[in-house]
Amino acid sequence: HGACEEEDSDVDDPWQDEEYYGSYKTLKLHLEMLSDQPRTQSYRNVIMQNSQALKGKRILDLGCGTGIISFFCAQLSEPEVVYAVEASDIVEQTRKLVEENGYSRVIQVLGQRAEELQLPTKVDVLVSEWMGTCLLFEFMLESVLLARDLWLKEDGVMWPSTARIHMVPCCADREYSSRVHFWDSPYGLNFSSLKPMAVQEFFSTPKPDYVLKPEDCLSQPCTLLDVNLKTIKIEALERMSSEFQFHVDCDGTFHGLTAWFSVQFQNIDSQEQVDLDTGPFNPLTHWKHTLFMLDQPMQVRTGDKIAGSAVFTRNPIWRRHLSVTITWSITSPSQNTEQNGCKVFPIWR
Amino acid sequence: HGACEEEDSDVDDPWQDEEYYGSYKTLKLHLEMLSDQPRTQSYRNVIMQNSQALKGKRILDLGCGTGIISFFCAQLSEPEVVYAVEASDIVEQTRKLVEENGYSRVIQVLGQRAEELQLPTKVDVLVSEWMGTCLLFEFMLESVLLARDLWLKEDGVMWPSTARIHMVPCCADREYSSRVHFWDSPYGLNFSSLKPMAVQEFFSTPKPDYVLKPEDCLSQPCTLLDVNLKTIKIEALERMSSEFQFHVDCDGTFHGLTAWFSVQFQNIDSQEQVDLDTGPFNPLTHWKHTLFMLDQPMQVRTGDKIAGSAVFTRNPIWRRHLSVTITWSITSPSQNTEQNGCKVFPIWR
Ligand SMILES: [Ca+2]
Ligand SMILES: [Ca+2]
Repeated sequence: HGACEEEDSDVDDPWQDEEYYGSYKTLKLHLEMLSDQPRTQSYRNVIMQNSQALKGKRILDLGCGTGIISFFCAQLSEPEVVYAVEASDIVEQTRKLVEENGYSRVIQVLGQRAEELQLPTKVDVLVSEWMGTCLLFEFMLESVLLARDLWLKEDGVMWPSTARIHMVPCCADREYSSRVHFWDSPYGLNFSSLKPMAVQEFFSTPKPDYVLKPEDCLSQPCTLLDVNLKTIKIEALERMSSEFQFHVDCDGTFHGLTAWFSVQFQNIDSQEQVDLDTGPFNPLTHWKHTLFMLDQPMQVRTGDKIAGSAVFTRNPIWRRHLSVTITWSITSPSQNTEQNGCKVFPIWR
Repeated sequence: HGACEEEDSDVDDPWQDEEYYGSYKTLKLHLEMLSDQPRTQSYRNVIMQNSQALKGKRILDLGCGTGIISFFCAQLSEPEVVYAVEASDIVEQTRKLVEENGYSRVIQVLGQRAEELQLPTKVDVLVSEWMGTCLLFEFMLESVLLARDLWLKEDGVMWPSTARIHMVPCCADREYSSRVHFWDSPYGLNFSSLKPMAVQEFFSTPKPDYVLKPEDCLSQPCTLLDVNLKTIKIEALERMSSEFQFHVDCDGTFHGLTAWFSVQFQNIDSQEQVDLDTGPFNPLTHWKHTLFMLDQPMQVRTGDKIAGSAVFTRNPIWRRHLSVTITWSITSPSQNTEQNGCKVFPIWR
């Protein structure tokens, strides 16, 4: 859920658990997630492709929501047991749905938080849909890694198995024109002194529900982070950084950088994997894309190089939040110029 | 602004002034209003059509925001003075814009609330854009009527001069399918026991940002209220009611009723008026339409009659809120049946 809702948070609750779990007790977000076909079908495909390998296995579905992944396991394979764990109040509904669909023998619904989870034995597979805005926001990933360290067998399987953040420099003309250029002469008046206020108000945080069109990309995207979910340590989430280098492949206006993520599910008995890519070259998901607007657009030309780094820093107080620091330098061989810049984007604190 | 933001309100502040004025101190809402061409051009047209009549007049622009209406007055006519009154912090910007555009001699910017307004003399014209969701939400109208009673000359002009609420029974198949039918068999599962929860969660308040397509209307619309803004008393806002009778003119599914408003600006020296109609047969405005969904859709046929009433009741405690009670009865001569119903929709308390 969005940027607008965290005004009333209290330092006594740096995880904002009441708000966080509260948002999952109504149907709105569950409907949004279930209606997201690329997302839900990816999980279904993984289960289906591993139908044989999951036979007799113990599966943990962490943050199961209405239980859809657990249902896929019970429908498409014959696991020994699926622990469907959900900490929000929606779990009452999940329990009822499991009964009504006749899977009470396979699916055990547990209304617990990952941090307090109690299982009779370790599991063979930990599956979870923990991804948020820009992959990391809400840091449900920490709960997943905690559960992994306590409840996944040494040789167990993590789904997703890897997660990547991708980024591309882009033209975002409509965003910029409608929010900044607009003030130049609305209805023949000069409102241009509002432009700095507009840049500050609209572009100091990223736009989380942006839809990047492929034709607005100014180069091939880069992979910024590539996280192995079987091995990454919780402490590593505090600061993750990456360098990038983009080769501009068309003349255009560089307004900002758009990020998205992909996750990969490694098949158990084969080298193949299922890939859920939320980027502009794949069907749109409910995560949309995340646009980081620069304060000033810049003209770039084919052959220019945009090099720099992105640092993802978790908020030391508000544990579900992070900031992204982007540093860039544009080198133009045709113009013989270099321009540098840096901007810090909180998501959302 | 929307339904989601009023959770943290305090009974000590039944007007929720901090939230209300706070939302107008940033550019977001002002940009949305200025970018709304049908809205802003209507006000511009009124001023332009009354250019001669406004010469030498005193004008009060209440809740002026960035001052656009005041600028139109100064640009297109020669009023003696325009009092541009704005209670939110955006007024600092408005003051600067007036100076920068060279209108300081004509436009006097006043950072006051309507309730505390002090003017040197009464005015000839009171112009204001006070309309909200379903016309009345936020009840800025009360502030406008207060200012009218204190500061408008006996024979002064109110713009808008009249305001109407319109309503039509409609088919809203996509709304209903995607939120209720969805649970019948998502991914081959039976989630139908969630349907009552979905109806309760999604349809107990109206949908304020609905876009009704003309082809989804099941009859001609009715005008529910027709308010004369020169004469209506503040007390009359507490409860306004109206009967309706719709003649169904096509076979279809009756999912709910959609409401919108129009306002009329009476020209000073002619019988003509400027009409701002926010309905489905006119260009879309930022107000969109307001959909009141019934709990159960019903099949209707050409020749059926939907009769009933709509009562707009202001919340006695939360003074910016109201509820709409809709009572209906469907008579089908072809089927020889009658069905009745009643539902109360809070906006938003
Ligand atoms: Ca998520
Ligand atoms: Ca308004």
